[in-house]
Amino acid sequence: MEITRRDLIKGSAAIIAVGSLSVPTYARDRDPLPSWNDGPAKQAIIDFVKTTIDKSSPKFVPPEERIAEFDQDGTLWVEHPVYTQVFYCLGRVGPLVQQKPELKDREPFKTVLSGDREAIAKLPIRELFEIVLETQSGMTVEGFRNDANQWLAKARDPRWKRPFTDLTYLPMQEVLKYLRANGYKTFIATGGSAGFVREYSEQVYGIPPEQVAGTSQAIQYGYDSDQHPILTREPKLVLNNLEAGKIENFWLCYGRRPYAAFGNSSGDDQQMLEYVKAGPGERLSVAVLHDDATREYAYGPAQGLPDTSVGPFSQAMYDMAKKQNWVVISMKNDWKQIFAWEK
Amino acid sequence: MEITRRDLIKGSAAIIAVGSLSVPTYARDRDPLPSWNDGPAKQAIIDFVKTTIDKSSPKFVPPEERIAEFDQDGTLWVEHPVYTQVFYCLGRVGPLVQQKPELKDREPFKTVLSGDREAIAKLPIRELFEIVLETQSGMTVEGFRNDANQWLAKARDPRWKRPFTDLTYLPMQEVLKYLRANGYKTFIATGGSAGFVREYSEQVYGIPPEQVAGTSQAIQYGYDSDQHPILTREPKLVLNNLEAGKIENFWLCYGRRPYAAFGNSSGDDQQMLEYVKAGPGERLSVAVLHDDATREYAYGPAQGLPDTSVGPFSQAMYDMAKKQNWVVISMKNDWKQIFAWEK
Repeated sequence: MEITRRDLIKGSAAIIAVGSLSVPTYARDRDPLPSWNDGPAKQAIIDFVKTTIDKSSPKFVPPEERIAEFDQDGTLWVEHPVYTQVFYCLGRVGPLVQQKPELKDREPFKTVLSGDREAIAKLPIRELFEIVLETQSGMTVEGFRNDANQWLAKARDPRWKRPFTDLTYLPMQEVLKYLRANGYKTFIATGGSAGFVREYSEQVYGIPPEQVAGTSQAIQYGYDSDQHPILTREPKLVLNNLEAGKIENFWLCYGRRPYAAFGNSSGDDQQMLEYVKAGPGERLSVAVLHDDATREYAYGPAQGLPDTSVGPFSQAMYDMAKKQNWVVISMKNDWKQIFAWEK
Repeated sequence: MEITRRDLIKGSAAIIAVGSLSVPTYARDRDPLPSWNDGPAKQAIIDFVKTTIDKSSPKFVPPEERIAEFDQDGTLWVEHPVYTQVFYCLGRVGPLVQQKPELKDREPFKTVLSGDREAIAKLPIRELFEIVLETQSGMTVEGFRNDANQWLAKARDPRWKRPFTDLTYLPMQEVLKYLRANGYKTFIATGGSAGFVREYSEQVYGIPPEQVAGTSQAIQYGYDSDQHPILTREPKLVLNNLEAGKIENFWLCYGRRPYAAFGNSSGDDQQMLEYVKAGPGERLSVAVLHDDATREYAYGPAQGLPDTSVGPFSQAMYDMAKKQNWVVISMKNDWKQIFAWEK
């Protein structure tokens, strides 16, 4: 069989046509957020991405400035009834008190040792910090990494009996991938300890350790008994990543105002969301409202629960969200599916 | 003219052959470091890259772990006779003293106001920090950015009469590009102020602000008179990125031990270079020795100049470099060309 030049040109034209039409059609038709119900929250996220990557838009954001910042606990994964990291630290209090018996009668260690789960869940965040600092210090950075990884591999959450790393929200995983597919770099800014989150952030969220900022204790240079240089974790807080600290430290470590921020807690994310939304150009601030008592949890004043200074989603933050035009996600109404392993 | 199927197949085969042969040949033949003279320093850098990207090597480094850290002043660009940032801050001392006359008779401000260049060049680093803190605070982060950019656009260095951003070392620019072309993420870890370096790091080195760690003063959340949220720079040191602080803070911000580190100063880079070299697997620690009095500067004890605690390349660091098998770059012998604009 002979092929004419005309056939060749026609064939090439067909290939070019298929190539140039099919990819955009596919991209247009494919829902980037399939676990989301259609509604204003989903639409606002998609509109934000489309606007900021559109070169013809006055709100176009150059690729190198595309930075999105995510709180972790309560935003990317379950934080109730107690932060995962607190479960980790609580298991270390027993051995710690054996080494330092003077802690036994001191709060918050006394409450932890009592085993009273309700009392433990009510410990103020600054007392949790004290537990974190005491239990996560005195070892090298590698020693801590090993211990955290061993715990993460074995530990199961009390409700679903799954590894904690299974408790990430599928709709937020889709947002992370959607942003990255459109040139956004994704960062975590956690009120928890950066070192702990860095152990699973790459595997669980596709976010490398160097893009995780968090509460941090001092790291001290020194030498081991063989005169090899080591870094050890010290019981001293150097970066407090709660409240305003979360956005102050983001600037400190990365020197950027993100274009998008995702959070859920008034004691943790309010200033970050306010500051991001106040930036020039198109900005997206999103707050997750935990209002699904069946599939996850319902808490916060919008659910008729008590409003505490570090509690999730205070009435004041809710009012600010409405006034400043943040996107508020209702887990109950906006999320079709919450976890990847469901159904 | 008719084209047969055989012609088509032959043509395709030729295209495939050209495609698969020519690219590797080109890559093999092309010198990634053309401004370097052949010698052990150049060879060690190339060997490190080849070994760590070779999947069949036991020293292969997975792409996500390929992190390289660079000091800036004296490693990526000229630091003599005074750090660029000090030139910037000195120009701000006059206006500052008008606002705060009580500083006039206090050191180090008194020395700066005297205009005695030699005395200014000899100010200890902690007094320079005080000048930096006083002159770079009290404004919003955006206000600082604007001011720094205006200065950088106008300022000229005293010797070559060029913008300071022209004074980067071409051979190091080649190393940055060579590492990135092989999957390494490049970071700056500066003893200077992170906020200042972030203003030109992307344009000058291709390193985005979020990959610049440095000495940092406090950032404070607040509101302007219109109740818009702002971040202001405060005269309080929170991250001291000198000596051991440089590697401690790298861990704090990024949670990684780099595979390669480049520095030049014993008061600034010694611990970073020691810690990186001590890591498991293949590691590269490189120190730049300023020994070219004609084309750049010669200073440090290896040049018969006085050894100070924060001085560049003390004898102690030189001994450590030899013992621990760091690569020592002689600017005079290893670099064919120093600046891109030469010749």
